[in-house]
Amino acid sequence: ETKANSSDFVTNVDKSTEVFLVEGIKAAFADQDFLTEEDTTPRVDSDELWIIDPIDGTTNFIYQKKNFAISIAYYHKKQPIFGIVYDVMADKMFLGITNEGAYLNGEKLPKVNQDRTLKESILYGDLYSLSMFEKSPEDLRKELVSHRYLGAASLEICAVAENQAQAYISRNLKVWDVAAGVIVLNEVGGSYYFGGHDNGLFYNDSDGVFLSSQNKNIENDIKS
Amino acid sequence: ETKANSSDFVTNVDKSTEVFLVEGIKAAFADQDFLTEEDTTPRVDSDELWIIDPIDGTTNFIYQKKNFAISIAYYHKKQPIFGIVYDVMADKMFLGITNEGAYLNGEKLPKVNQDRTLKESILYGDLYSLSMFEKSPEDLRKELVSHRYLGAASLEICAVAENQAQAYISRNLKVWDVAAGVIVLNEVGGSYYFGGHDNGLFYNDSDGVFLSSQNKNIENDIKS
Repeated sequence: ETKANSSDFVTNVDKSTEVFLVEGIKAAFADQDFLTEEDTTPRVDSDELWIIDPIDGTTNFIYQKKNFAISIAYYHKKQPIFGIVYDVMADKMFLGITNEGAYLNGEKLPKVNQDRTLKESILYGDLYSLSMFEKSPEDLRKELVSHRYLGAASLEICAVAENQAQAYISRNLKVWDVAAGVIVLNEVGGSYYFGGHDNGLFYNDSDGVFLSSQNKNIENDIKS
Repeated sequence: ETKANSSDFVTNVDKSTEVFLVEGIKAAFADQDFLTEEDTTPRVDSDELWIIDPIDGTTNFIYQKKNFAISIAYYHKKQPIFGIVYDVMADKMFLGITNEGAYLNGEKLPKVNQDRTLKESILYGDLYSLSMFEKSPEDLRKELVSHRYLGAASLEICAVAENQAQAYISRNLKVWDVAAGVIVLNEVGGSYYFGGHDNGLFYNDSDGVFLSSQNKNIENDIKS
């Protein structure tokens, strides 16, 4: 119940989940590389790169006991192959397979609307810690239907793919927070911007600024 | 699918849910009064006042198809008797009975911690549209563990009662948004501030500013 205990507990669950996943994959396939919170310096141009976040949304894990996810992505020479985001407590499994489609619990997700505008959009994210683009958070807020904040990047990106929101914005994100979710989103026609680059993850100069959206109209309206 | 159609649809669901509830109560009990979005001028000091929001969280209802609630409260001469908040899609029924306790799906909710501080708290609400107290939203944000925003007042008040968050803040709220949730929250030891008054709903001078919290430490830290 104390903060220190709760922090130890999370670290233990985090590590044991990661070990479970990494050992399982290693047992099934030879010569795999892993990029995780614990091991951040693998060969990112590996043929067989697994990017894993064992608990995305640790604050939710502690406080809410829901709205946290396991995120697993598989990349080949920096190209996305598939991504899985599992909303543990809601038992929702998002799967994106490059050039094949995105699925929620086995059902194919429809493509998102390419004509929708920011004024017709709900934006997920922590607007308060943001001053990333030209607009102030207050001005951005006024252009939206509303905003919402869940506190788990992988789930918020998948919410955009599922059309429960139309965009998601955050900062201080790491590759493992978004690597799986963006594959799901790309497969329904959405796109993302990460650390100053479009639809790419592996940049040394990333400042962690992340914006994903259903279409470029919305992205451009948020940025300018 | 068009905005106009969706708006009509919501109005219809809203009205038909309200009629269903009001007619059901009238059929069971004589001489009841009702305070709803459609009928905002009953005798608020009635012996038998039902305060009903048939859909709290209409934006969520439209966009997310979850995170909306039915809110029903019963007051006797302005005093709270019981309140029900039903999270429809999650099938979670919150019930607060004055001086008897609060329940979630029939299980009694424990009292909330009276010693927790703002620094150990998650705050729900739309901080962006707020400049209600002395602190700016940005400064308030820095004092918290984090904030979250769900977009349905009744559910966010019940989240504080359930200890998934420790406080909730909003503005432009109406009596029917909060009348049931605050009974649930009061029964676990929490309190609220509405339109400049503590733990009271029926004021003509209300500006809709609402703040609920698990304890007075947290409330005072938010206000000053």
